[in-house]
Amino acid sequence: MTPSNHHNSRFLQLFPIVGWIKFYTREEFYSDLFAGIITAILLVPQGIAYAILAGLPPQLGLYSSILPPMLYALFGTSRTLSVGPVSIAAIMIASALSAPEISILGNPVQSALILSAESGIVMLLMALLRMGGLVNFISHPVLTGFTSGAALLIIASQLPQLFGLKTPSCGFDAACYSHYFSGLVPATLSIGLSSLGVLVFFSGPLIHTLKKIGLQPSLITAISKCAPLLTIILATLAVDYYDLAGQQHVAIVGQVPPGFPLLNMDFIAVEKWQLLLPYSGFIALIAYVESVAIAKVTANLRGEKIAPNQELVALGAANLAAAVSGGMPVAGGFSRTMVNFAAGARTQMAMLIAAGLLALAVIFFSPWFENIPKAALAAIILIAIIPLVKLNNIPITWRYDRGDGIAEISTLLGVLVYGIEEGITLGIILTLISHLRKTSQPHIAVVGRIPGTEHYRNIKRHSVETWPNLLLLRVDESITFANINYIEEFIEAELRQQPDITHIVLIFTSISDIDTTALEVLENLNHSLQAAKMTLHISEAKGPVLDKLEKTNFISQLKPGKVFFHTEDAVRELSENSSLT
Amino acid sequence: MTPSNHHNSRFLQLFPIVGWIKFYTREEFYSDLFAGIITAILLVPQGIAYAILAGLPPQLGLYSSILPPMLYALFGTSRTLSVGPVSIAAIMIASALSAPEISILGNPVQSALILSAESGIVMLLMALLRMGGLVNFISHPVLTGFTSGAALLIIASQLPQLFGLKTPSCGFDAACYSHYFSGLVPATLSIGLSSLGVLVFFSGPLIHTLKKIGLQPSLITAISKCAPLLTIILATLAVDYYDLAGQQHVAIVGQVPPGFPLLNMDFIAVEKWQLLLPYSGFIALIAYVESVAIAKVTANLRGEKIAPNQELVALGAANLAAAVSGGMPVAGGFSRTMVNFAAGARTQMAMLIAAGLLALAVIFFSPWFENIPKAALAAIILIAIIPLVKLNNIPITWRYDRGDGIAEISTLLGVLVYGIEEGITLGIILTLISHLRKTSQPHIAVVGRIPGTEHYRNIKRHSVETWPNLLLLRVDESITFANINYIEEFIEAELRQQPDITHIVLIFTSISDIDTTALEVLENLNHSLQAAKMTLHISEAKGPVLDKLEKTNFISQLKPGKVFFHTEDAVRELSENSSLT
Repeated sequence: MTPSNHHNSRFLQLFPIVGWIKFYTREEFYSDLFAGIITAILLVPQGIAYAILAGLPPQLGLYSSILPPMLYALFGTSRTLSVGPVSIAAIMIASALSAPEISILGNPVQSALILSAESGIVMLLMALLRMGGLVNFISHPVLTGFTSGAALLIIASQLPQLFGLKTPSCGFDAACYSHYFSGLVPATLSIGLSSLGVLVFFSGPLIHTLKKIGLQPSLITAISKCAPLLTIILATLAVDYYDLAGQQHVAIVGQVPPGFPLLNMDFIAVEKWQLLLPYSGFIALIAYVESVAIAKVTANLRGEKIAPNQELVALGAANLAAAVSGGMPVAGGFSRTMVNFAAGARTQMAMLIAAGLLALAVIFFSPWFENIPKAALAAIILIAIIPLVKLNNIPITWRYDRGDGIAEISTLLGVLVYGIEEGITLGIILTLISHLRKTSQPHIAVVGRIPGTEHYRNIKRHSVETWPNLLLLRVDESITFANINYIEEFIEAELRQQPDITHIVLIFTSISDIDTTALEVLENLNHSLQAAKMTLHISEAKGPVLDKLEKTNFISQLKPGKVFFHTEDAVRELSENSSLT
Repeated sequence: MTPSNHHNSRFLQLFPIVGWIKFYTREEFYSDLFAGIITAILLVPQGIAYAILAGLPPQLGLYSSILPPMLYALFGTSRTLSVGPVSIAAIMIASALSAPEISILGNPVQSALILSAESGIVMLLMALLRMGGLVNFISHPVLTGFTSGAALLIIASQLPQLFGLKTPSCGFDAACYSHYFSGLVPATLSIGLSSLGVLVFFSGPLIHTLKKIGLQPSLITAISKCAPLLTIILATLAVDYYDLAGQQHVAIVGQVPPGFPLLNMDFIAVEKWQLLLPYSGFIALIAYVESVAIAKVTANLRGEKIAPNQELVALGAANLAAAVSGGMPVAGGFSRTMVNFAAGARTQMAMLIAAGLLALAVIFFSPWFENIPKAALAAIILIAIIPLVKLNNIPITWRYDRGDGIAEISTLLGVLVYGIEEGITLGIILTLISHLRKTSQPHIAVVGRIPGTEHYRNIKRHSVETWPNLLLLRVDESITFANINYIEEFIEAELRQQPDITHIVLIFTSISDIDTTALEVLENLNHSLQAAKMTLHISEAKGPVLDKLEKTNFISQLKPGKVFFHTEDAVRELSENSSLT
């Protein structure tokens, strides 16, 4: 029994993994193994750090790095995207958990699971409604402004951790700041700065030296990407050795329960769902948009294709998996994906290997995570997040397109001043307004006949025949609520300029739809024209448009106005003495 | 000193009143006087009723009927719009005042003044930003759905008043309803039903009879529009005579302070502004959209023009006037405007006369308003509001355009289930999504040359020359974030079908802008094409588009791709052996 080709391709669409696993080679496996190990080494500190950034126990970040990437591997169309906890989602989770109406309910772990489940469901619903095209809802400048703003918020949240300050935030209260700095813990500060030092050394000078001595590039990648793990190990050893946690009040991660949580249904029986829904909606939207953007970058480099709607399925499944396996919401991470790609990952096998290694780490190494100092994690987050702050992008955007520049700056400021969700909302609204503005003025051509032919062309571009009593108008877009007012005004302006017009023919060649609002306005226009002794006609309407109009009484209202099949027929019947322009 | 023509027209634009008052005739005055009196007779009960509907003291509705219409007369472009308190704005005010964060602050009159001031400022800001075109933000089906929903809410709020029930609302609590009906006040019920009876009689049977005996139409209008005032007078006399308020617990309007309030600055020094701003924004939007819709109806009937942006100025000024004269937010009222028009109003002089009469009423008749029973007002509101419930419209919209039908039903249900503001928000979002969907798939034509000419036309519609190594694409719309993904996919699909293509020429004749997002995607596309040994070119780009691209390094990235002035030049340079399709 061979499945039909059609069946087969539907199956392949739903499980892109089948597309590569059948032809998987040993060579690819070695590449993936290497990349998987490197990515796993990065995932352990990132998982713990992002969970803490979100205001959650560290294990949630680890759990999110196991089952979710496995589901993404099954459903996802990107071969290199590394799905798991990410910084932007983490700060969005923190924002949700600290909202008064949520925090008052307690149990942040439960809230995080609900966020994962809801984000997953929102994505799957969007997939069902085939809303993959909604990546469009957020333009690049808005996304950049949002990411920069969120990254700045993350940096601001990590500085106190890095310096060992006790008060997390002072705002504009000057007196608070003296208290702020008196709370500084010297041991924490030392660990924070040393960690930063190690990370900076590995990312710059060391690579430079290794390149000089002619080491293999993939090995250089591997070495440089071990920096976070090395930082963690060194910092943890220091805490252990000097008992910094006990004697010097250095903040540490604390106990991490060993092994896996039971498949968790903690998120089921709750009334928090409604309160968390708006936050989940935003997390789903941003997680999706950012993931697809990252996936496209690596796919373009290899000439592969990303299917936006299938990405919704894959990310939705990954987030549901996060919920049942006790994890926080996940997305594709920018730095991890680039590392995975640079380390030579060929397929999602690399991420399956990484997930397996994470599972081993959770089973065997959990007790080792207890003494990781938070200052070292803060240093790792800082180094990972700084490249996401793209302020230098703003003047470029501003110079190229003023509207986009305003949107980028407004979104950035919105995030910083009003908060994460408000910032995105502002960005989306600005995107939509700018879109409405741009599309509310469709191209409309007054046309005439090219002499000796039956072709009708724009009178501004061609030398054509026209008739003083006849206005031939071609609207080059579907007529909707957004542009009908402009069209109406255009017609009225033309009629003011040409007082001899008695017949107006709307040429419908480019029109594939007329919505309810537009139809009502056309009906009113027809009435006013009739009152002013002018007649409105239609020509060259497509079948579906005519079918739709025939459901209404618009065509009978037009009378004596007619529906012509060809513009030429209209001209023959309606035109008086012609003139050449 | 004669002002320049240009000056003169700017002045006329800002003060449309100048356009008619210079040529004002005695005949017009008599028409306006009659219409003004009729409208004033309607305004007194409506003003009191809508203030009570909004949860405010009755005088706020009266004050709103004096200064605001005078300012509209000065700035407005509609000659017959009757500006003052309206039912939809009243229920929106009630919704704002009863929101927990607002009601907790007390002093609803102050809140109402702030709503007036803020609505006015929002409208003036929109005028400044020339956002008059934003009428487009709300499509007709969404507006109809919203109006029907709000009207149903008003009806539900008035029924207990009409029947003299004490509990205003029971929701789904069955036990509550027994209590509900036991609270019924028989005297109130009698007044409510009698009032309804008088109103129905005047609107139907009486008109019918008067027409039969051949009375003058304008006189019939006058008589029928006196029904609300007559109802009020009869009901008040009944309350007075039988002391129904004291002995039978019939709810009455209560004391109305005589004379005018001092010009009121009560709304200045407050921290409520921020909390009320979202509500004011919605009130401003709906007041503006509904007013323009109504103004257009009467303007179309007389062949006059409404200038949307100037309407923002006029309504903004009217609302600021409401704030300083102690009134609630105002808009153009549908029923009043139609009455004003039917009574023969020629210009805003009618509304100036009505406002003058209202001022006299406030000065001399305030004590008479005290004993007006609320049940009679409820009857007036019901009769005025029922025509706004247009449920029969839904199946028509549904049959004509499924998307519009869904938007109409969702908005209606949104208002009923979630509330006024939520309903509008839902409607606006649905409008924008549908718009984005419709415009995210621009028309793209693969073109070829009409043999023997230099004209390039769609290969699907014309018999044209094509070349196997050359893909000529004409995108018929500006390229933006909303459609660039579709364009990219279109190109990729074409390339899969035509594997011999080595050169792709994008013909930019219809493109007047490329935004930041689109530029980035084009840059990436160019990279992938170059990696696949294909070259991207541009032809016939307009000056402003080229200027914009020259600010970036896109054109240098294209190399060896070129920018051609004519498509013909591109074909001559790039084409290999041709074929005819």
